[in-house]
Amino acid sequence: MEMNALPVACIGAGPIGQGWILTFARAGCAVRVYDSDAANAEQALIRIAKSAADLEQAGLVESADALVANVRLCSTMEAAVEGVSYVQESVREEVQVKKDVFLALDALAPAGAVIGSSTSEIAGSRFLESVPGRSRCLVAHPVNPPYLVPLVELCPAPWTSQESVERARQIMEAVGQAPIIVRKEVSGFILNRLQFALMGEALHLVGEGFCSAEDLDKTIKHGLGRRWAFMGPMETAHLNSIDGFGGYFRKYDHIIRKMIDDLQPAYRYDTQLLDRVHEELSAVTPVAEVPRRQVWRDRMLMRIARSVSHPEAAQEDRS
Amino acid sequence: MEMNALPVACIGAGPIGQGWILTFARAGCAVRVYDSDAANAEQALIRIAKSAADLEQAGLVESADALVANVRLCSTMEAAVEGVSYVQESVREEVQVKKDVFLALDALAPAGAVIGSSTSEIAGSRFLESVPGRSRCLVAHPVNPPYLVPLVELCPAPWTSQESVERARQIMEAVGQAPIIVRKEVSGFILNRLQFALMGEALHLVGEGFCSAEDLDKTIKHGLGRRWAFMGPMETAHLNSIDGFGGYFRKYDHIIRKMIDDLQPAYRYDTQLLDRVHEELSAVTPVAEVPRRQVWRDRMLMRIARSVSHPEAAQEDRS
Repeated sequence: MEMNALPVACIGAGPIGQGWILTFARAGCAVRVYDSDAANAEQALIRIAKSAADLEQAGLVESADALVANVRLCSTMEAAVEGVSYVQESVREEVQVKKDVFLALDALAPAGAVIGSSTSEIAGSRFLESVPGRSRCLVAHPVNPPYLVPLVELCPAPWTSQESVERARQIMEAVGQAPIIVRKEVSGFILNRLQFALMGEALHLVGEGFCSAEDLDKTIKHGLGRRWAFMGPMETAHLNSIDGFGGYFRKYDHIIRKMIDDLQPAYRYDTQLLDRVHEELSAVTPVAEVPRRQVWRDRMLMRIARSVSHPEAAQEDRS
Repeated sequence: MEMNALPVACIGAGPIGQGWILTFARAGCAVRVYDSDAANAEQALIRIAKSAADLEQAGLVESADALVANVRLCSTMEAAVEGVSYVQESVREEVQVKKDVFLALDALAPAGAVIGSSTSEIAGSRFLESVPGRSRCLVAHPVNPPYLVPLVELCPAPWTSQESVERARQIMEAVGQAPIIVRKEVSGFILNRLQFALMGEALHLVGEGFCSAEDLDKTIKHGLGRRWAFMGPMETAHLNSIDGFGGYFRKYDHIIRKMIDDLQPAYRYDTQLLDRVHEELSAVTPVAEVPRRQVWRDRMLMRIARSVSHPEAAQEDRS
């Protein structure tokens, strides 16, 4: 797919919208940006230029200037979507706001364009039902920031056409993202369900005094996360036995079932526990230092991105 | 801590024992190895030399020869533990076998030495009760391979002394591992509980047709795992809000509680589902190719290890 031939519109220029703008512009798309608050859009351009410079410095884009040159602010939604192949909506997380924006986008966008929503928590069926062109609409939920964490959850509503899902998948892959298909609507989609299954048990373990919050974090970052940076849990199990996934479960099934029965991911944590974890984390990173630590996090994400996308890694990876 | 002044014994030279031998020898310890099957021990030395060469090639050890020179096979358990500061047991996962080995090790090891077990599934209280020196014994559960995934779960039994836990923690940190303390005995310790909380929900999502096993894996490796390679779930939440962990939960608590209630990590998966996942994974990596793919996995673990231990990363990390 020729990216310069793929104009896209980004509607909403808050933090999520900015991430998408960077992602599409980095891939060479002509990105048209619209935000109902013009000052917001201007601010976004400044932040995008800053992030592009960071990416250039990290060796993750060749030219920050070339990236920024792909972005154009538009003063109307109509101008933004004119002639585009894809629209990414990233406005406020409110059902009525999404309904209004999708009605407007569907009325304005070219017939062939697919329209994706960045919503992380609202099922498409809650705001798409009355949209005439609902068959070309779906949820395309990114991870923050999408230009460093490429997963995109494509969640069709009951009326989304197979063609639109397939087209969205192709576009996401073409711009360097890693799309998955959520086949049926489900609360939290896939990523947040996995995240909170783990978080629930984590709160149980810290809440009942089995370990500290710091040691809980170490278990992930010095343990499980080392593999999960490049391999999912299914493949991890597949490679844990020379007989593959089936052999692994045949060997450990009785232990796994026993352990699963003992888990308490639906642990009733109270605010006292949340306060205690907050205090423990704040002793290491006081709230005032969170922004500085976020810069560190993003630099680390760049290191990991380089690490897993290196030709040496890609050469042997097949997905 | 001066590593050359720290002689250690590794009892059992199977795959887990080999990982420990490499870990201690890389750190400069004098490593004495005993396996009741002498042929097993000889085989282990060959594999260790091979792994050491891989590590040298990856830039993770300076000299494979120097590492291997730190390892000495012993023909008796008595010779192996003579004068050591620490003993790591990695024999068969059977309660009676562990009981016998710990009785023997406690009788032979110098008074000051701490004795750790590699068991991943047997609580220390099940094999340590009748050991006279049980106050110096504990579980020290590694991740495989420990020289690439540094987490060690230190799990004291009810009789383990605070001094022994602290001594084990210091030794593990001194040899480059990342120890955590499991304060009370719990089935699966911390790592496997977190792993299977996530796996249980993963099986539910694939089993009920919400996504494919491949897309489930993508969600981790292209999504959550990017952060978890260098940051735990608690710190992830702490950095998700400028008001820290507390602010994050205040904002999203109602969504998180609703989602947690909807999770099914204790999903009753059947063998049909396991077979289906096995087939899907085998279509990408046939069982015959698992060993080749394991080599890729270990190379990727080396890339991630370099990435997260790089001075640029370490400089700003504080744990």
